[in-house]
Amino acid sequence: MTEKLELLSPEEMALRWEKVRQNMGQARSLLITDNSNLFYLTGRVFAGYIYYDTESSKPIYFVRRPVHLTGENVVFIRKPEDIAQHVDVSANAKANQEGLALELDTIPYSVVERLTNVFGCKQPLNASAILRQARATKTPVELDMLAASGEKHASVYRSVPALYQDGMTDMELQIAIESLSRRKGCLGQFRIAGASMEIFMGNVLSGNNADAPSPYDFAMGGAGADPSLPVGANGTTIKPGEAVMVDMCGNFTGYMTDMTRTYYLDHVSDLARKAHQCSIDICHALKKMGRPGVEAKKMYEQAMTIVQEAGLEAYFMGHRQHAGFIGHGVGIEINELPVIAPRSRDILAVGNVIALEPKFVIPDVGAVGIENTYVVEEGGMRCLTNGPEDMFPLE
Amino acid sequence: MTEKLELLSPEEMALRWEKVRQNMGQARSLLITDNSNLFYLTGRVFAGYIYYDTESSKPIYFVRRPVHLTGENVVFIRKPEDIAQHVDVSANAKANQEGLALELDTIPYSVVERLTNVFGCKQPLNASAILRQARATKTPVELDMLAASGEKHASVYRSVPALYQDGMTDMELQIAIESLSRRKGCLGQFRIAGASMEIFMGNVLSGNNADAPSPYDFAMGGAGADPSLPVGANGTTIKPGEAVMVDMCGNFTGYMTDMTRTYYLDHVSDLARKAHQCSIDICHALKKMGRPGVEAKKMYEQAMTIVQEAGLEAYFMGHRQHAGFIGHGVGIEINELPVIAPRSRDILAVGNVIALEPKFVIPDVGAVGIENTYVVEEGGMRCLTNGPEDMFPLE
Repeated sequence: MTEKLELLSPEEMALRWEKVRQNMGQARSLLITDNSNLFYLTGRVFAGYIYYDTESSKPIYFVRRPVHLTGENVVFIRKPEDIAQHVDVSANAKANQEGLALELDTIPYSVVERLTNVFGCKQPLNASAILRQARATKTPVELDMLAASGEKHASVYRSVPALYQDGMTDMELQIAIESLSRRKGCLGQFRIAGASMEIFMGNVLSGNNADAPSPYDFAMGGAGADPSLPVGANGTTIKPGEAVMVDMCGNFTGYMTDMTRTYYLDHVSDLARKAHQCSIDICHALKKMGRPGVEAKKMYEQAMTIVQEAGLEAYFMGHRQHAGFIGHGVGIEINELPVIAPRSRDILAVGNVIALEPKFVIPDVGAVGIENTYVVEEGGMRCLTNGPEDMFPLE
Repeated sequence: MTEKLELLSPEEMALRWEKVRQNMGQARSLLITDNSNLFYLTGRVFAGYIYYDTESSKPIYFVRRPVHLTGENVVFIRKPEDIAQHVDVSANAKANQEGLALELDTIPYSVVERLTNVFGCKQPLNASAILRQARATKTPVELDMLAASGEKHASVYRSVPALYQDGMTDMELQIAIESLSRRKGCLGQFRIAGASMEIFMGNVLSGNNADAPSPYDFAMGGAGADPSLPVGANGTTIKPGEAVMVDMCGNFTGYMTDMTRTYYLDHVSDLARKAHQCSIDICHALKKMGRPGVEAKKMYEQAMTIVQEAGLEAYFMGHRQHAGFIGHGVGIEINELPVIAPRSRDILAVGNVIALEPKFVIPDVGAVGIENTYVVEEGGMRCLTNGPEDMFPLE
């Protein structure tokens, strides 16, 4: 039994490679090996490399595993050095020695050294930046996969209040949500660019644990259950008057949506209600504002203006430790372009998919606010994670 | 509220640093940033760097996040370039410019470039190899954490038959095991060295899906539920006569045990029973054989001898695609030293913790065999994942 390596249609392949080509700049050839980028360029993850040069303009797939993949340009190798036998390194001397781009932001130094030796390349260019830009605007096929994830993601959140049982800890509630998500088809895998980023399937924050600083570059923290993974739920019982923020994995298709809803037990303070409404107001304002050509940093500024008018700065994006962004691109990974942050140089374009998460941490109550994933269209942003935005009581 | 950065006792810190020092070779200074190594050297994950040089012999913690950590040698920085203000680069010129070791096997090329610029270092040495060697023999404290994981891990497997319900798919069974594991305290996080390795919480393989080749360097494959994560359960209903191999995450303490048990529905073929018994026989033989000073490759050879005597080579470590190892070190990550493989140069030492997984894939039945995690002691290996090894029927 064999299986075709390329899982995308020829039209879809052409569309994605065109985006890559447009972002190649000085690069004349590419060697891609990061799983997220392999998935983007073929529709599957495999162990190996995609080689591409602007002369021949046809990707070659160098595959180490699995052994049953087939296709016109599929070449099996045992180690990266075998690539040299199949790519005419000397004929492509200029393309490969001066213009080879590798994924310098994700692949380890020792792997890059090995690959540059194969190609006789001294100063590799950065393919990470090229692919990150290409992937920042999604194709219609990608948007369909994101919309499918968003629908399932939203359906999980509608069931959260019913999952709660008297006396539950934050972790018990998280585990119930994990299980429901998985049964609805969530793949669980939480892909994040950046070697030091880790999380297990998402974040459920209750009460003051929301104010525990974490080492990770997420919008919210939490002490976590163990110092080996210090983020999220910490196993304390959810108490009346606490807000419970649920921000769980939305990867149902290989493409992730990002979505947060907040619940509470029994009652919640007026300040928390005010801050939650402020989060909704910011999302609605930015949804209208987010059009092609708009500077990402202006969206951040607009959010800050709304926060300041509400007098809620002290609680915005954390209380003891503050996150430096209110939104981020999302797709195959949770942290794609554009970034909605004060010093972002990104400019919105049609097909950007952006998670907005203006959140607040209220001492002695917890984290409040919402997060939705939106696609940028000509007339504004369209929400992919539709569901009630109010705070709901846990039943 | 503040929190001490170092979570290990002074004695434990001294023991681990002594292991690191013994493996430093030509390296005169180290800069560590990989989460697994930060956890090893402090007992917690944080965002930042540990700097160490053999002259001063006292680690300095450069912390980006979280903001509430304290301690004698804790220095807060915003970016790695800030390190230069605190480490006397010129006084330590030789240590840092010629003898600086960075984790070249795990940290991305562009991060290494940034760090070498900070230290004026042209040719960094490889700290990955140093830490991998240091971590290969566990301290008593680490062994306690592994034993604690092993006990909980084993308790999950005892409940597997009771989790099965009529008509379940492999994925439904996996989700039930995930949920039970999590409720027993499993952290879920499956730490693997190597950027291209991915899995979500483990692997449940039923029937012929066990023979679907996967891109990952695990002992077993499986098609998975989606081409973005092509490994493990594929969502087909478990059928009578099929073996169901369960190899799920054993990370309950930041230290993971690795454990596999095999179940079956209704009945299973004699060939499958024979192969399963052969796996048990191999584990028992290697448990006695595994003493300090034994070459890892000899253990592989011994396993192959037993397989050949049983005439089961065609099924060993896969059928359509074969894995090249039968065991591996395990600890903070699932793939540590030593490696039990034909060309391994590793030699067993007291404190090695090794998962042995001699497995078979039987066409039309599935994967059979067991896996246990053992600690190497003077007189042989001691099992940390104790539980019945026979194949049990799903109830």
